[in-house]
Amino acid sequence: METIPAGVFGAEIMARADALGRCSDVAGELTRVFLGPAYGQTAAMVTEWLVDAGMTVHTDAIGNVVGRYEGSVAGLPALILGSHLDTVRDAGKYDGALGVIAPISAVKWLNQRGRRLNFAIEVIGFADEEGVRFQTAFLGSHAVAGIFDPALLAKRDDAGVSMADALGDHGLDPGGIDGAAHRREQVLGYVEMHIEQGPVLEAEGLPVGVVTSINGSTRLEVTLTGEAGHAGTVPIPMRRDALTAAAEAVLAVEKVCSAGQGLVGTVGKLVVAPGAANVIPAQVRFTVDIRAPRDPDRTAAVDDVAAAIAEICARRNIGHELRRAYETPSCDCAPWLIRRLDAAISAHGIEPRRLPSGAGHDAMSMAALTDVGMLFVRCEGGVSHNPVEAIQEADADLATRVLCHFLQNFQPNETS
Amino acid sequence: METIPAGVFGAEIMARADALGRCSDVAGELTRVFLGPAYGQTAAMVTEWLVDAGMTVHTDAIGNVVGRYEGSVAGLPALILGSHLDTVRDAGKYDGALGVIAPISAVKWLNQRGRRLNFAIEVIGFADEEGVRFQTAFLGSHAVAGIFDPALLAKRDDAGVSMADALGDHGLDPGGIDGAAHRREQVLGYVEMHIEQGPVLEAEGLPVGVVTSINGSTRLEVTLTGEAGHAGTVPIPMRRDALTAAAEAVLAVEKVCSAGQGLVGTVGKLVVAPGAANVIPAQVRFTVDIRAPRDPDRTAAVDDVAAAIAEICARRNIGHELRRAYETPSCDCAPWLIRRLDAAISAHGIEPRRLPSGAGHDAMSMAALTDVGMLFVRCEGGVSHNPVEAIQEADADLATRVLCHFLQNFQPNETS
Repeated sequence: METIPAGVFGAEIMARADALGRCSDVAGELTRVFLGPAYGQTAAMVTEWLVDAGMTVHTDAIGNVVGRYEGSVAGLPALILGSHLDTVRDAGKYDGALGVIAPISAVKWLNQRGRRLNFAIEVIGFADEEGVRFQTAFLGSHAVAGIFDPALLAKRDDAGVSMADALGDHGLDPGGIDGAAHRREQVLGYVEMHIEQGPVLEAEGLPVGVVTSINGSTRLEVTLTGEAGHAGTVPIPMRRDALTAAAEAVLAVEKVCSAGQGLVGTVGKLVVAPGAANVIPAQVRFTVDIRAPRDPDRTAAVDDVAAAIAEICARRNIGHELRRAYETPSCDCAPWLIRRLDAAISAHGIEPRRLPSGAGHDAMSMAALTDVGMLFVRCEGGVSHNPVEAIQEADADLATRVLCHFLQNFQPNETS
Repeated sequence: METIPAGVFGAEIMARADALGRCSDVAGELTRVFLGPAYGQTAAMVTEWLVDAGMTVHTDAIGNVVGRYEGSVAGLPALILGSHLDTVRDAGKYDGALGVIAPISAVKWLNQRGRRLNFAIEVIGFADEEGVRFQTAFLGSHAVAGIFDPALLAKRDDAGVSMADALGDHGLDPGGIDGAAHRREQVLGYVEMHIEQGPVLEAEGLPVGVVTSINGSTRLEVTLTGEAGHAGTVPIPMRRDALTAAAEAVLAVEKVCSAGQGLVGTVGKLVVAPGAANVIPAQVRFTVDIRAPRDPDRTAAVDDVAAAIAEICARRNIGHELRRAYETPSCDCAPWLIRRLDAAISAHGIEPRRLPSGAGHDAMSMAALTDVGMLFVRCEGGVSHNPVEAIQEADADLATRVLCHFLQNFQPNETS
C-alpha cells in the first residue's frame, strides 16, 4: 500500500476549517445554529467540497448534507463518516467541522487516484448536534439513524418559530424526514473524527487517540438545608451550616470519582443562601455531573455519592433532597472498529492510545443504526466550546492520513 | 435588701418594646435608622418614659436621648446604662430597645421607693449603633465616649443628605458633638443589657448570662483561581478545580475554628464561576469571618486558615489571593463588673453563665471611656436581625430584677 507523505492534507483542512468558521449567524463570533442564517452558505460550501472530492451530494429532509462515493460497483453498502455542522454559541472552529472536512479530503485523495473500494463511503455533515436552537440535540444523526421523534417538529425556538416551519423556510420537507433514515443492511459502520475536547492526548504527547466508549452521564440536583444564624454568635458545635456539609459533599464527589475506570464527577454549580459574609449558610443547592465509560461504574458512583451525602447530612443534622435530573447510558465503540483504528495509527509509528469520550457525539445516535468508532484529535489545552479552541495543522494532517489508511484497509465483512 | 417579686417588670417592658417597635420609618416592618422619619416619635416616647422614671432628660448633639437619675447628692459620678434606639432594616423589637427600656423600668422602681444611691445613674438611648443610614456604626456611643470622628459629618446617605444636614434638620448642632462626650472622672462604668442574638442561653435553659468580652473579628476575602474545563472530558487528576479547593478551605475554616476558646469561623458567601453544571469551576470567591474573645486566638486562627488555604492551593495547583477586608480587636468586659453581674444573677438562684459576645455592641465604644459590662438575655432560637426575634416576658422581668439587684449592690469605688 502506498504510504501517504506527511503534509498532503494539513493545509487544505486548516483552510477549510477557517472558511467554515466564517459561516456564522452572528458577526464577530462563530455561532452556527440549526438552519440559522448561515445554514445556506454552509451547506453550499460543504456541497462544493464534496463534489470536488468526486462525490454525489444531496441534502436530506432534516438538512444534513450527504455525499456518496461509490465503491467498485454502484450501490454497495456504505461506511459512513461524518460529524456535525452546527456549533454552540461563540464556538471554536473544529468541534464538528473537522469530522466533516477531513473525510472529504480523504475521499478526494482516493478519487484523485481513481481508487474505488469494495464498499461505498458516505460523508455526512449533520445539520444539528449541539441542540442550541431547539434545546434538543442530535437532530441530524437521529434522522439518519431512523430514531428522529416527529413530535419535535412542533418545538419552537426562542423566536417562536416551529421546527417544521424552520425546515419549510429552507425548502426542506418535514414529512420526508423518515426518508433520511438509512437502511441497516446498507450501512457497514460509522466512524467519526472529532477533537478530543479534553487534555489527555496533549498531556501524553499524542496527536490522535481511539475512543473506546462515549460516557454515560447522570446529573444530580442536590439541595442541603440547614439553619441560618449570626456568624458571630452561634458556636461551631451548635451550627447547622449547609455550606460545610456541601463542602464535604463536593469532596466526596471528587473522592468517589477518583476511583479510575474513566469515572469523572463534577460539582459545577453551587449556590449559597442567604449568601452574606456574616450569616451562617441556611441552604446550598448544587449539581453533580457524573460520567463513566461503563454504566455500572457510573451508577455505582452515583449510589456512593448519594450515600455519602446522606451520611454527611445525618451526621451534621442537615436536611437534603437529591433529584436525578437526567441519566443517559454509555455507548460502546465497536471492538473491531477500535482495532482497525488502532492498526491505522500504529502504521504511522504512533502508540494507539485508547480513551473514553466524556462529551456526547453523533456516534451515540448512529449506534442505534450501526457499529460506531471514533478517532480523537489532540486539541490545545483540551479547550473546546470556546473561540480559542485550536488544533495543530500537523495533527489534522496525520489524523487524515490515519483515516485514509483505515479506509484502504477496511474490510466490510469484519465485525466484532 | 428587699427582694423584688417576679412579675414586677415583665409586662411594662414587653408593652414598651411593642410600642417602640411601632416607631418605624417604613410601614409594615420595623426599620428605624439614625435620624430617620421615626426619630422624633422615638425620642419623644423614650423621653416620656425617662421623665416618668424620675429622671432629667436631654438630647445630646448627635441625637442620643440621655436621662439622669441623681444619687444621694446631685452631681455624683454616674454609672451609665443603655443601648441603641436604631435598628437594622426589617428588624426585631428587642435588639437595642431592651437595653434602654429595662434600665428605665429599674430606675423607675428605685425612684418609686425614693431610693437614692451613692452614685448617679444615666440611661442613654444611643441614636445610632447599626450604621444603616451612613454605613458607619456606633455614632451615638462614639460621641458619648469622646471618640466621634468629625470627618464623618460630611458623609452622605443614599439620598445624598450629609450627616451634618441630617443633624441640622432635627435641630441638632453638629458643632456641639464634642459636648456629648462624657468626662472620664464623671463615669463609673457602663453596663448594657442586650438580647444574646445567639442560641447558647436557650440551649442551656438559662434566662440570662454575663458577657466576658466582645469578640474581635477578622473578615477575609479569598479568591481561588483554577481552570475551567468540560466536566465530561478532563480526568480528575488533570483538573485544577477551584471548587474542590474551596471545599477543603471551608472545612479548614471549620476545623481551625473548632479549637474552642470561643472561636467561631464562618464562610457565609461563596460564589462559583462560571457556575454551569457541566463546566469545571474556574474560580471561587468566598468570605471568611473569624471571631474570638481573645485577639491572639483570633489572629492565630486567621494565620492557620491562611496557611491551610496556601497548602491546599499549592497541592492542587490553584492560584489564590487573600485580602483582609477588615479587622477589629476584641473588647474585654471589666472583671469587677462581671463579678458584680454574676453575683446579682446568683442572688436570683440562677447559675451565672459567662459567655463571649459574637456580635458588636455599644459597649465596645464605651470601653474607650470607661469599664464596661454586659448582661445577655435569652432570645428565641438565637434569632436576631429578623422580625421574628423574640424574648420571653419572664426573662425580661428577671433580667430587670437582676439589674436592680446589681444597681443596689454597686460599689462606685470598686475596680478590678
